[in-house]
Amino acid sequence: MIKAGIIGSTGYAGQQLVWLLHSHKNVKIVFVSSHNHADVSFSDVYPHYAGLFHQKCVDIPAAEEQFSSIDVLFIALPHGKSSVLAEKAIQSGVKVIDLGADFRLKDSETYQQWYQVNHPCPYLLEKAVYGLPELHQSKIQKASLVANPGCYPTASILALAPLLKAKAIDPSSIIIDAKSGASGAGRSLSPDLHFCEAHENIKAYKVATHRHTSEIEQELGVLAGKELTISFTPHLLPIKRGILSTMYATLTGEYSFEDVYSLYSDFYKGEPFIVLHQEDSLPQVKYVNGSNMCHIGFVIDKRVRRIIVVSALDNLIKGAGGQAVQNMNILFGLEETTGLLNPGWYL
Amino acid sequence: MIKAGIIGSTGYAGQQLVWLLHSHKNVKIVFVSSHNHADVSFSDVYPHYAGLFHQKCVDIPAAEEQFSSIDVLFIALPHGKSSVLAEKAIQSGVKVIDLGADFRLKDSETYQQWYQVNHPCPYLLEKAVYGLPELHQSKIQKASLVANPGCYPTASILALAPLLKAKAIDPSSIIIDAKSGASGAGRSLSPDLHFCEAHENIKAYKVATHRHTSEIEQELGVLAGKELTISFTPHLLPIKRGILSTMYATLTGEYSFEDVYSLYSDFYKGEPFIVLHQEDSLPQVKYVNGSNMCHIGFVIDKRVRRIIVVSALDNLIKGAGGQAVQNMNILFGLEETTGLLNPGWYL
Amino acid sequence: MIKAGIIGSTGYAGQQLVWLLHSHKNVKIVFVSSHNHADVSFSDVYPHYAGLFHQKCVDIPAAEEQFSSIDVLFIALPHGKSSVLAEKAIQSGVKVIDLGADFRLKDSETYQQWYQVNHPCPYLLEKAVYGLPELHQSKIQKASLVANPGCYPTASILALAPLLKAKAIDPSSIIIDAKSGASGAGRSLSPDLHFCEAHENIKAYKVATHRHTSEIEQELGVLAGKELTISFTPHLLPIKRGILSTMYATLTGEYSFEDVYSLYSDFYKGEPFIVLHQEDSLPQVKYVNGSNMCHIGFVIDKRVRRIIVVSALDNLIKGAGGQAVQNMNILFGLEETTGLLNPGWYL
Amino acid sequence: MIKAGIIGSTGYAGQQLVWLLHSHKNVKIVFVSSHNHADVSFSDVYPHYAGLFHQKCVDIPAAEEQFSSIDVLFIALPHGKSSVLAEKAIQSGVKVIDLGADFRLKDSETYQQWYQVNHPCPYLLEKAVYGLPELHQSKIQKASLVANPGCYPTASILALAPLLKAKAIDPSSIIIDAKSGASGAGRSLSPDLHFCEAHENIKAYKVATHRHTSEIEQELGVLAGKELTISFTPHLLPIKRGILSTMYATLTGEYSFEDVYSLYSDFYKGEPFIVLHQEDSLPQVKYVNGSNMCHIGFVIDKRVRRIIVVSALDNLIKGAGGQAVQNMNILFGLEETTGLLNPGWYL
Repeated sequence: MIKAGIIGSTGYAGQQLVWLLHSHKNVKIVFVSSHNHADVSFSDVYPHYAGLFHQKCVDIPAAEEQFSSIDVLFIALPHGKSSVLAEKAIQSGVKVIDLGADFRLKDSETYQQWYQVNHPCPYLLEKAVYGLPELHQSKIQKASLVANPGCYPTASILALAPLLKAKAIDPSSIIIDAKSGASGAGRSLSPDLHFCEAHENIKAYKVATHRHTSEIEQELGVLAGKELTISFTPHLLPIKRGILSTMYATLTGEYSFEDVYSLYSDFYKGEPFIVLHQEDSLPQVKYVNGSNMCHIGFVIDKRVRRIIVVSALDNLIKGAGGQAVQNMNILFGLEETTGLLNPGWYL
Repeated sequence: MIKAGIIGSTGYAGQQLVWLLHSHKNVKIVFVSSHNHADVSFSDVYPHYAGLFHQKCVDIPAAEEQFSSIDVLFIALPHGKSSVLAEKAIQSGVKVIDLGADFRLKDSETYQQWYQVNHPCPYLLEKAVYGLPELHQSKIQKASLVANPGCYPTASILALAPLLKAKAIDPSSIIIDAKSGASGAGRSLSPDLHFCEAHENIKAYKVATHRHTSEIEQELGVLAGKELTISFTPHLLPIKRGILSTMYATLTGEYSFEDVYSLYSDFYKGEPFIVLHQEDSLPQVKYVNGSNMCHIGFVIDKRVRRIIVVSALDNLIKGAGGQAVQNMNILFGLEETTGLLNPGWYL
Repeated sequence: MIKAGIIGSTGYAGQQLVWLLHSHKNVKIVFVSSHNHADVSFSDVYPHYAGLFHQKCVDIPAAEEQFSSIDVLFIALPHGKSSVLAEKAIQSGVKVIDLGADFRLKDSETYQQWYQVNHPCPYLLEKAVYGLPELHQSKIQKASLVANPGCYPTASILALAPLLKAKAIDPSSIIIDAKSGASGAGRSLSPDLHFCEAHENIKAYKVATHRHTSEIEQELGVLAGKELTISFTPHLLPIKRGILSTMYATLTGEYSFEDVYSLYSDFYKGEPFIVLHQEDSLPQVKYVNGSNMCHIGFVIDKRVRRIIVVSALDNLIKGAGGQAVQNMNILFGLEETTGLLNPGWYL
Repeated sequence: MIKAGIIGSTGYAGQQLVWLLHSHKNVKIVFVSSHNHADVSFSDVYPHYAGLFHQKCVDIPAAEEQFSSIDVLFIALPHGKSSVLAEKAIQSGVKVIDLGADFRLKDSETYQQWYQVNHPCPYLLEKAVYGLPELHQSKIQKASLVANPGCYPTASILALAPLLKAKAIDPSSIIIDAKSGASGAGRSLSPDLHFCEAHENIKAYKVATHRHTSEIEQELGVLAGKELTISFTPHLLPIKRGILSTMYATLTGEYSFEDVYSLYSDFYKGEPFIVLHQEDSLPQVKYVNGSNMCHIGFVIDKRVRRIIVVSALDNLIKGAGGQAVQNMNILFGLEETTGLLNPGWYL
């Protein structure tokens, strides 16, 4: 059994991770930690666990004391908060999977530019592996520190990777119009997320300035073999969970649907969490609720020589907790899909 | 392995049952049958199964041919449609769990009165056991035909049973004001369920005439030891799933919260799917999404000498597919909770 | 032109009042006051006014200085806050319409009991008229201080008044199960109203303790000719606006639908904002969005000798701002319907 | 008084038009026509009109008989259905405003290509004026047949017109990612619009094939001074009304926010229904519910030399009924804003 600790367990991403680990046959949850709910039973914070999971949340110092009793530490905290914890855990020989943003960018200057603070622990950056298993599985196997990707980047990078790798699209033409459910913004109160303000509404936000842009550019740049810049526009939807990402790029030649489908199916051969849509079918957020799948579909528009790619995933699962478990499975030599093959829910 | 067949597998209740059986470690799904989607892969009807479950739906005649290969048949069809199938299956030695309404009422005249058609197969009524395990577990164990209760009745009967059994409330005073998500009305199109009509709306429907009234009265009458009539008012909510039932009854004496809590905890001792709320806490629909739990809480209003009981369950799980699996577990001598202890989802 | 000032203009009820007054042909808005948004243009607080209404919000002291320039003061503040302002305005000869709770109860002890603070200004209570025009029109005409009723009480009292007046129901049997949209809880942030917590959810709250109970009991008691107590259970719905109230009472005799319909149509003869539903039709929240109408329908259940009455209104209009304008029209001798006859919206 | 008839009055666009005309001080509604609801009172089809508007719907032949009694005919029918009616009305000297698609395209071949039927009445195309008042006001004044623009085109064309006119963007670079509420798809039942399918979901549809593409290209081409092709991707949102359009284009030079803001404010000088957002503010669907306003905002992303423009409007008002009334006002020499200046609703 893998002994796991979770810090930030009562945030929306954290609780989803607990949900997955609680049902994982190879995992024992040693502690769930929560600053806001220390000493409260998990089922009092989240009553859907009543009768099922009653561990008491511990505060962070109490969590740290148990680092010697765990094999893996999951950290689900806002950026800037995980470095000290990650450092201590690694020194104790614990593998760390950080769901926050601190170790995703290779370059501390890029971090400084987008996050507008100095990186709290730049020396750990070279240790960290970007935990997108479909691209970096072999590196993840050997990592001590995995940077779990952001939800928007996962949806975007997976959808565009095969095209860039095959040089089928012009890297300078990429536009990503992404739409996310409100859980992506977390459980902290804010006027934008007040029910009457968010319901029956949609808005674009952080246009041209969202931090996930840097993460997407880094990974797409590696695939393209050169630096690139993109347009990335996130939108807030009046739904609880799910991301739909609609992407536009100029094709570098004449491609049929079959040509491009082959690019994708070859690139993702054997990948258990990628679902490719056939012609005339496209992903919907509804198809991925509660699952670790990333659905990808596309349309080729010959009139304008562009491809429109649509991807969908659950921001709390493939975009957070599920991908973290996938990374854990890889880190510990388990079957990558362990605990992640339950179908989501349609309703 | 229990070999199972499901008829009506692509309705909302049916697909939820498939969802549970697909993850059940002691079950092999032999066929999924669907009149509307015969010869279509289940994952084409419900794309969230892509990569996970690809059986082709068979039509009903093809399903019947496989009765000899199954141990249990689940039928999730509108009332009036299951009798012939149930009869054939039972004759083949197959246990039948009917999620429809045909075998829930003991009395074919009551059926005729509320459903306004003659009962299609009255002789089977005495064979049938009302499949509410918290009340009828020992009968279910020996049954060949289990009538899976309706969603509203499950929420109401479980919430009121301990009070009636203890004669703590006046049986003639019971009022049930129930609110249900739209999945309870199924997948068939209707103007009421058109998105723009149902969203941002709530309405009462079938006031004083809803068929579940008869089912509730039958079971509560047994508990009370005499016939009773109730007021039952269902409402349609702009949510996908879940039932919240608010019930009112006049107390027969002076009861403290603790007195009544004891009645409930004694009555439901050891029941794995009943969650009792402490004082100052009440069930919410959110607490039961995706789970087989029924949450129950109450308030005693001394000013008016009434008790207000609130219960919540997931209409597609404890109110349909989950309860069917619970019944199957009991029928086949498995642990009652097998495949049913995954926590639901909060978001 | 009636010169009006509005205090608390940027809350959800306040902004709806501004919306109505802005289009009212006999009203000039002298000031809109807001503690939180002082010196901000109204269209910056609520951008749907861009290009239409740009007055700057003033803080409360600045509003008070303009009391000599207005004919009527609307106060839309939480309970306990309006007394001092009401007092000053009345002393300046200004008519006051208070949308808060402070002047609704006749008896300061009842206020103390339900609001758990001493009444801030008990001597004004006898001056105040309960501003439900369908019941108290002649008193309102002469009032200097109108207590605008609560949203739940308006929906409940209007629906039950004719039955109590005619002694058609047993006063001790009344049960009110009410469901409200989230705007009723206002614009202040709270965990319950965080989008992901409120969406796809329903819950009962303040069961047996909601303050509106006292207001309903007061008015229904007058109609019944004796003190009475009721059961009142509010629920929070995942919709923005609207109240649906489902009420249960035991009939005192044999009544046909026509009998009861006559009671209602006689009682509300000529009332422009009451819509009675014919047999087999019931109110829905959708029917009253954006309008000052109160829809009322009912079903007689002979089996249990109860009547089930359903009413619907818009909590921000007939339940707040619209009723306030209706009261203003009466106070100033205008046609009662002025500015209030635009149909609401169905979508 | 302008005497108006409305055909297709009970569809979602039609009823919104009735809503506006009913409150318009210069209009008398002579008939409301509905194929599906002939002989039914309008308030029985839409109960929010109870007590307010009770005209009986007439079927189309009965409507035609009254052409001699009206000044203007509004037609809100699916494409292909309005030509014969338009022809007859024009012959009777009635001005026609068609909310359908048949007269929007100048070129019957383009129509045939996108609508995949022959144009039912090509000779009327040259008579028709594209009814976007902000661009074609003077032509509309003299028209006998006004083609009311589509909802998506209105949102897109208004947002991009100033940029194309000023040659500030590369016409070949335009990408429009649009999101619409479900009322845009009308009141006819379809699986996609079943509540449980549409709620908590978002999907792209008709990618690269949506018919509104042709309309947008036609009008933008005129502004650019040359033919152009665009990418247009519509999405279905789980909201009732509203369109948010997010547009991307490559700038032709270095532009500051102020530069571009000037382009817009000059282009739309005096236009009553255009709201420009200041820097760091962007339109939201919530800002335009129920109003005839089109909100426009933009961000310049120097990193990628693109401009991202966001526009929002109410698909049933500025995208349908409101624009039709605006066109009527112009046709009949009224103030353009008559009946259209009520603020929408925020909640």
